[in-house]
Amino acid sequence: MTTTPVAPLHKHRLPMQSSLAILDTPAALIDVPRMHHNIARMQERMNRLGVRLRPHVKTTKCLEVVRAQQAAGGRGITVSTLKEADQFFAAGETDILYAVGMAAHRLPHALDLRRQGCNLKIITDSVVSAETIAAFGRENKETFEVWIEVDTDGHRSGIKPDDEALLDIGRVLQDGAALGGVMTHAGSSYELDNPAALRALAERERVGCLLAAERLRAAGMPCPVVSVGSTPTALMAEHLAGVTEVRAGVYVFFDLVMCNVGVCTEDQVALSVLTTVIGHQEEKGWAIVDAGWMAMSRDRGTADRGRDFGYGQVCNIHGVVLPEFVLSSANQEHGIVSRRSGVGGDVTTRFPLGTRLRILPNHACATGAQFPSYQALSPDGELQAWGRFHGW
Amino acid sequence: MTTTPVAPLHKHRLPMQSSLAILDTPAALIDVPRMHHNIARMQERMNRLGVRLRPHVKTTKCLEVVRAQQAAGGRGITVSTLKEADQFFAAGETDILYAVGMAAHRLPHALDLRRQGCNLKIITDSVVSAETIAAFGRENKETFEVWIEVDTDGHRSGIKPDDEALLDIGRVLQDGAALGGVMTHAGSSYELDNPAALRALAERERVGCLLAAERLRAAGMPCPVVSVGSTPTALMAEHLAGVTEVRAGVYVFFDLVMCNVGVCTEDQVALSVLTTVIGHQEEKGWAIVDAGWMAMSRDRGTADRGRDFGYGQVCNIHGVVLPEFVLSSANQEHGIVSRRSGVGGDVTTRFPLGTRLRILPNHACATGAQFPSYQALSPDGELQAWGRFHGW
Repeated sequence: MTTTPVAPLHKHRLPMQSSLAILDTPAALIDVPRMHHNIARMQERMNRLGVRLRPHVKTTKCLEVVRAQQAAGGRGITVSTLKEADQFFAAGETDILYAVGMAAHRLPHALDLRRQGCNLKIITDSVVSAETIAAFGRENKETFEVWIEVDTDGHRSGIKPDDEALLDIGRVLQDGAALGGVMTHAGSSYELDNPAALRALAERERVGCLLAAERLRAAGMPCPVVSVGSTPTALMAEHLAGVTEVRAGVYVFFDLVMCNVGVCTEDQVALSVLTTVIGHQEEKGWAIVDAGWMAMSRDRGTADRGRDFGYGQVCNIHGVVLPEFVLSSANQEHGIVSRRSGVGGDVTTRFPLGTRLRILPNHACATGAQFPSYQALSPDGELQAWGRFHGW
Repeated sequence: MTTTPVAPLHKHRLPMQSSLAILDTPAALIDVPRMHHNIARMQERMNRLGVRLRPHVKTTKCLEVVRAQQAAGGRGITVSTLKEADQFFAAGETDILYAVGMAAHRLPHALDLRRQGCNLKIITDSVVSAETIAAFGRENKETFEVWIEVDTDGHRSGIKPDDEALLDIGRVLQDGAALGGVMTHAGSSYELDNPAALRALAERERVGCLLAAERLRAAGMPCPVVSVGSTPTALMAEHLAGVTEVRAGVYVFFDLVMCNVGVCTEDQVALSVLTTVIGHQEEKGWAIVDAGWMAMSRDRGTADRGRDFGYGQVCNIHGVVLPEFVLSSANQEHGIVSRRSGVGGDVTTRFPLGTRLRILPNHACATGAQFPSYQALSPDGELQAWGRFHGW
């Protein structure tokens, strides 16, 4: 998790093209200025809307990136696994929301974290699960802070805001646990692609989560936190009255799915995969590169909506988009760069053997997970390896 | 890379259900008897056909699995990255084919391996690349053994067997390198689903590769090795006259794509993801599990052909297929188990909170890569962690 210079593959402060020309490939590059721009954009928006931003670290699992989010004003983190909680707590972060429904077998792990001083918050969306948490807390004399997960768009987990059982969950938590708030995630926003629909979903997310909080409060239960969020709804919400915090993750890098949603442009995408041309099929107009699906991930999130980028958008070594070219196909360690339009005759001369390209990913969370570390690229061409962790 | 017992999550020799009931989830389980059966099936077939089997280790990147393949009669290995070569050479394997077109910037790495005593073989499919390899060899007084990659099915890299440039490549390699053989991979076999088409493709793979070897030999160049292979063609070839070795990888575990191809059955798939039910949406007939796409990978290889298994086929904790249920959708750490037929009302009672399920993957190579280690499950319920490596 520490920041270490990359050695011996390069020296510091080489011109950008030189450092990228000798780095081994495939490599997961972070364009550091773009990352800072994306962080500032979201933070400024949350500041303007008067809510706290709790970044979701599942996108990067990278300490250096999360430190940049916190330095800009992020407060606390959201995690998708207890391994993320362990790693970030070990690095000094104490305010952690574990935003996946609590499984009973993970309660001892959560207890360990809390006993070590981690202000870990867990979530539930059912009476049965709430009873298990409360009973475990009573047995172990630990008052778990629990947030109730609310379903505002039908895409996954959570209890409906108007469900009678919502109050039952709240009541169960009064004995042996502490109801800390309500949270929701309008993940279906990834499937939208126009501002009006995104604004409407953001409002549905806000209203639904707030309704749940108000029902609990009206029944006499404290419900201090109202937590909503997804990158698209966070960026498109017209206001967030009643909301106390927003969670978002992929905004830190953005990706081609987010371009299709319409919340960023290709030249704002901060993650790319550096690759090398290793062969050609000239008559087919193919350049073969060493970024296959093991590097890009199998995510084809742009396949069935908006613009289909195949396995990614091809850019030159400087990160300039070459709009005619996509990574049209991928095997494990082979990618095929070809024209969107199909056959084109100049690929061999245009991209000779050894040419370095950058590929923008469909889904930054999935692509990052394929790599043990990112290569963070500063404007002066300096590269630093930023570790990320893997597994559960 | 060493075999270590799993601690402290279980004790040895628990009954299977007990050890799987307390292992943390998601976990990548290997059914060890199925794995040995799959290894023996392929090895016996290769022995019968009179060819050497050179397993492709990119599927597992796991020393224990590859040792089982070698113990059954596998000779040498195939790798898709030089990291695989490094790791397996460090573990004692010296006969290694790096089966991705050689990039010039990786020649120093390959040279290091050879100078340490690794009998590393590299491949090329162009005159330009062959000239680069030969020149680098002359400069460094190292005679690289090079195999020429032949394209027998048009799916990716390689030179056509009847291309005039084939002989030019061979000639270039005479000065500063050694032509070791020809190799091809009929990867388009993954898209087929009937025995006649698979047999025809296997024959096309054999004939094409042999033609390339014979043209080189007729021009006076030695070409000792004729190497072919993909799991489907290896299992369906009627004979392999003229072929000296076969490469295959995914046969060691098999997966749902291979079920659709028709070369295995679901009860032969040796890899599954153990998962826990963490929630429900009762009215939708959904059980939410903790195996999302981070565990299964984003591979949807069964989406557009044969039977569509979503993100995987659901089995009970014992590995018995529940044919009605698939992992129909996945977010990063959430999977949705539902009936193939859509809504079904009994999911909450059938799969209560805490239920353990196993999910068969679409693509074993992609799913394995999501995990830092496998959990190898013996018939007596013993679990061992078998490491696998990650990245490049």
